Amino acid sequence: MTDKTTYPEYTSRYPLLVKSLMKRALYLYPDDIAMVYRTNSGDTLRYSWNQWHERTCRLGHGLKELGALPGDRIATMALNHHWHVENIFASICSGYISHPINIRLSMDHMIYTINHAEDKIIFFDEDIKPLVEMLYDKIKDTVKAFVYMSEKPGLPDTRIKPLYSYEELIGKQPENYEWPDLNEDTHAALYYTTGTTGLPKGALYTNRQVYLNTAHSIMRAGMMVRRPNDPPRPNQNISMMNVPLFHIHAWGAPFLSTMASSKTVFPGKFSPESFCELVQMEKVTGTMMVPTMLAMLLEYKDIDKWDLSSLLGVAIGGGALPLGLKQKAEKLFPEMRAGSGYGMTETMGGVIAGTIKRHMADWPDEDIDQIMVKTGLPSLPAIDARVVDEFDRDVPRDDETIGQIVLRGHWITEQYFKEPQRTAEAWRGGWFHTGDAAKIDKEGYITIVDRITDVIRSGSEMVPTVLLENITSNADFVLEATYVGVPDEKWGEIPMAIVKVMPGMNKTEEDVLEYLEKEGVEKGKITKWMLPVYVAIVNEIPKTSVGKYNKLEVRKNLQAFVDQAIRVRL
Amino acid sequence: MTDKTTYPEYTSRYPLLVKSLMKRALYLYPDDIAMVYRTNSGDTLRYSWNQWHERTCRLGHGLKELGALPGDRIATMALNHHWHVENIFASICSGYISHPINIRLSMDHMIYTINHAEDKIIFFDEDIKPLVEMLYDKIKDTVKAFVYMSEKPGLPDTRIKPLYSYEELIGKQPENYEWPDLNEDTHAALYYTTGTTGLPKGALYTNRQVYLNTAHSIMRAGMMVRRPNDPPRPNQNISMMNVPLFHIHAWGAPFLSTMASSKTVFPGKFSPESFCELVQMEKVTGTMMVPTMLAMLLEYKDIDKWDLSSLLGVAIGGGALPLGLKQKAEKLFPEMRAGSGYGMTETMGGVIAGTIKRHMADWPDEDIDQIMVKTGLPSLPAIDARVVDEFDRDVPRDDETIGQIVLRGHWITEQYFKEPQRTAEAWRGGWFHTGDAAKIDKEGYITIVDRITDVIRSGSEMVPTVLLENITSNADFVLEATYVGVPDEKWGEIPMAIVKVMPGMNKTEEDVLEYLEKEGVEKGKITKWMLPVYVAIVNEIPKTSVGKYNKLEVRKNLQAFVDQAIRVRL
Repeated sequence: MTDKTTYPEYTSRYPLLVKSLMKRALYLYPDDIAMVYRTNSGDTLRYSWNQWHERTCRLGHGLKELGALPGDRIATMALNHHWHVENIFASICSGYISHPINIRLSMDHMIYTINHAEDKIIFFDEDIKPLVEMLYDKIKDTVKAFVYMSEKPGLPDTRIKPLYSYEELIGKQPENYEWPDLNEDTHAALYYTTGTTGLPKGALYTNRQVYLNTAHSIMRAGMMVRRPNDPPRPNQNISMMNVPLFHIHAWGAPFLSTMASSKTVFPGKFSPESFCELVQMEKVTGTMMVPTMLAMLLEYKDIDKWDLSSLLGVAIGGGALPLGLKQKAEKLFPEMRAGSGYGMTETMGGVIAGTIKRHMADWPDEDIDQIMVKTGLPSLPAIDARVVDEFDRDVPRDDETIGQIVLRGHWITEQYFKEPQRTAEAWRGGWFHTGDAAKIDKEGYITIVDRITDVIRSGSEMVPTVLLENITSNADFVLEATYVGVPDEKWGEIPMAIVKVMPGMNKTEEDVLEYLEKEGVEKGKITKWMLPVYVAIVNEIPKTSVGKYNKLEVRKNLQAFVDQAIRVRL
Repeated sequence: MTDKTTYPEYTSRYPLLVKSLMKRALYLYPDDIAMVYRTNSGDTLRYSWNQWHERTCRLGHGLKELGALPGDRIATMALNHHWHVENIFASICSGYISHPINIRLSMDHMIYTINHAEDKIIFFDEDIKPLVEMLYDKIKDTVKAFVYMSEKPGLPDTRIKPLYSYEELIGKQPENYEWPDLNEDTHAALYYTTGTTGLPKGALYTNRQVYLNTAHSIMRAGMMVRRPNDPPRPNQNISMMNVPLFHIHAWGAPFLSTMASSKTVFPGKFSPESFCELVQMEKVTGTMMVPTMLAMLLEYKDIDKWDLSSLLGVAIGGGALPLGLKQKAEKLFPEMRAGSGYGMTETMGGVIAGTIKRHMADWPDEDIDQIMVKTGLPSLPAIDARVVDEFDRDVPRDDETIGQIVLRGHWITEQYFKEPQRTAEAWRGGWFHTGDAAKIDKEGYITIVDRITDVIRSGSEMVPTVLLENITSNADFVLEATYVGVPDEKWGEIPMAIVKVMPGMNKTEEDVLEYLEKEGVEKGKITKWMLPVYVAIVNEIPKTSVGKYNKLEVRKNLQAFVDQAIRVRL
């Protein structure tokens, strides 16, 4: 090994680089299985850390051969699999920027992000090929090369060009790559927001940020307060990657799993059946989901046929975890603990996590549930979080006053790519403005109540729709529930509940109101004026590509929902 | 709070500062007890995190009032107590350099370090006052102010001046201090080596290095492989600080305890009795010791009278943990796990730690012991360690070939203070040369065999004295054992064992040889030519101020030891 960086850089400034995240697994567990992928044809591919790293090194050479230059964006349009993870590490550790393209955006937005990012090379797989073909004419001037990821030899029949076969590209390369000693501020990753209110923005991250996010996540897990009946932590985590890599690199999962030398199981496309089959087969200990996936599992009729006892932890993100859903899940899987948190594209994953304090460890379940419905505590000391009013002053810690969450810390996006003005606006006053509405209690627990723009403004009051959604979905006859404001001459806006009822349950709009009066108003969780004026029982609630309730879509078709609704009170 | 540092520094370069280590405890556990100190007069002082931080803030103002300027060295000559820890945080977080003076150095060396460091202020306590008075004339031109730390009001009768009372100094200051937003490369700590081979050298560390050392230590603990019968980890660690703060800030303990919000118990001076009393009274869960302290505990007759069942972990440093000592300790405390590691003044504490790999978790105790006699695995990915020959080439991983350990990583000293030449020499080729001899096995386990200068060179072979020490102290009749080389015309050097026998055991020099033949040679751990030619049974083995065998002292008086010894073989 030659040293491009030497004394004094290796003393006080030993660099924080993504390449270092690979060292531990390669030193300690070179021959342990790192990644398992079941292909579309049903074959199961398994790679040890050494084999996976060898393939990643070969790809490093391959990228150079394709003409990649420092700082170039190397994009992927793909499901979750080892090729995808090899691409991420080879790109970042070579000094390029990994850009996982969100394939659930609208066509226009996808084309926009590719051209805006100026992606030089796009890697895609069999499943996504039809989509790439649809976009091809609008991106072919930007993208200089395409690489096809498949275990099958040769290239598919397509007009996409120039097109290279992944396996052929890496097959001819040397198996060692001396990853360069980059400056730790070298950009590593680019993630575009879903752009619910305008064009997507590209959140940019450095090597240092990815490293520190990973390190602090492991640190936080180690310091987590445990309850007496919590299952013991396994020495070897086996995690299933359900969240797409194009969502902030599956919330940073490849970095975390590599640093912790955890085995990763790639499920292909999510379905309750394949989820259960893989948990049983690979003895999966942990996974992550958006609430919708968990709801799908709970609806799955054959779930009892599988042995899911290895599953100890489920991290829920991409939306608040309704208490009802959490309780139903923990009833179904007694060994499992579901935890939620708060993060966004601009925060590279979690910045606030649902967690208890030491003195709560012995509390009964009901009291713990009251803590866990709060969004949680900031990831100190790595992340500073405040809830502020419109003049950036802290709101009182009364668990009532609603303000905006502002953040600073090790993994808050450095900038919106090529958007200095939007960057400066978000970072006004030295704090990143999230656009999320929240309140904070005297113990420092923060509760997200809404997007600032989603809050229903009724009279001079703000109706926190997430709270209403939580209480409503707590009803055993409710599967999903969301709230929006309906314009009203007197109040400005009045609340409307949109509810999807559990299959087979025969319940009415009045039952929803009655439940809220009993469980919400009478128990002091909400006030009477927060109760919905309209209730609509629907077959489907519109969702965004990340599984959140798509309120923009609801608002676009507001009249249609109001037409379906029943006015349940004056 | 005003922001001196704002966007863009708070984005990609959110600083790694010691002040951040205080945030978590103050946010989560402000009213939990942080520190407990029993004074010489028997009173027990207790401070919550908030109270402790308030005192630290007041001291921050006090230091400014005494004229401290950025970069100044603020020194301590003191036992372990809350004053000492307040001083460390107030100094570092204000932008000064904390210099804990090693009060076990020779007078000449202590005077040298104070003048070499140009300590501007020295904080001392009641116990150390006589020592400061002895040095006073030789340091009074350097030191501009002295501060006396005591719970008693007023100042003691002394010629030391100018002298301030700690409690008076902080009593009049405001209780909030806005710790500055320092550059993360601002120097934080200065530790002098014990200077066994020349004048002490000052190892200098930055805020970033202290932060990353702390963070990775917690991360490593969280990823540690656990055996099925390991006791559960407590949610609240209560640690006793036995190792003096003047040894690399007690191996970084104040930083670690603050970040983890662990309660710290300060025992004053170490004695087996007060150790047992405090463990029982404060329900101490973890502590750290040098092997000598553990040996003292095992010799303590009344140990059975105390309830030490809360004690779950003991970290051993400052010398190899002989297997015999480890086994004896774990027999006495069945719930306790002893772990050792390797570090030095220039590495701010541990860089290699005794730890098992995942596949060993179910191994029987005997096999685990064979792993734990090795020094351990490097703290990846934060620390890179290699074992190299005299041309800085890696030695083979055969667990036999002896080379020198070289290091780089986040907490290897940046420089020897005011010694650019010695710094450059240690850092030749971009790796820090430790001067320690080691071997490495095919699994990557490193075993320290000696200081490079301590290896006995017999014929063309190197006799690893630490291995011999380990095997010898494994005998149930041996309390301590060390080895040095005795000059010999034929062989260059021949090995001499110096042994301290367990009290009450009646054993001879021949018994030592016989034990080594049976347990060492016959079991294939050593070869016959490594057996000692001389064995000396002594009452006391000389030790350094950190509790290591002082081979320099033995060599100085070599003839006296040879005269006491018996030649046990040809």
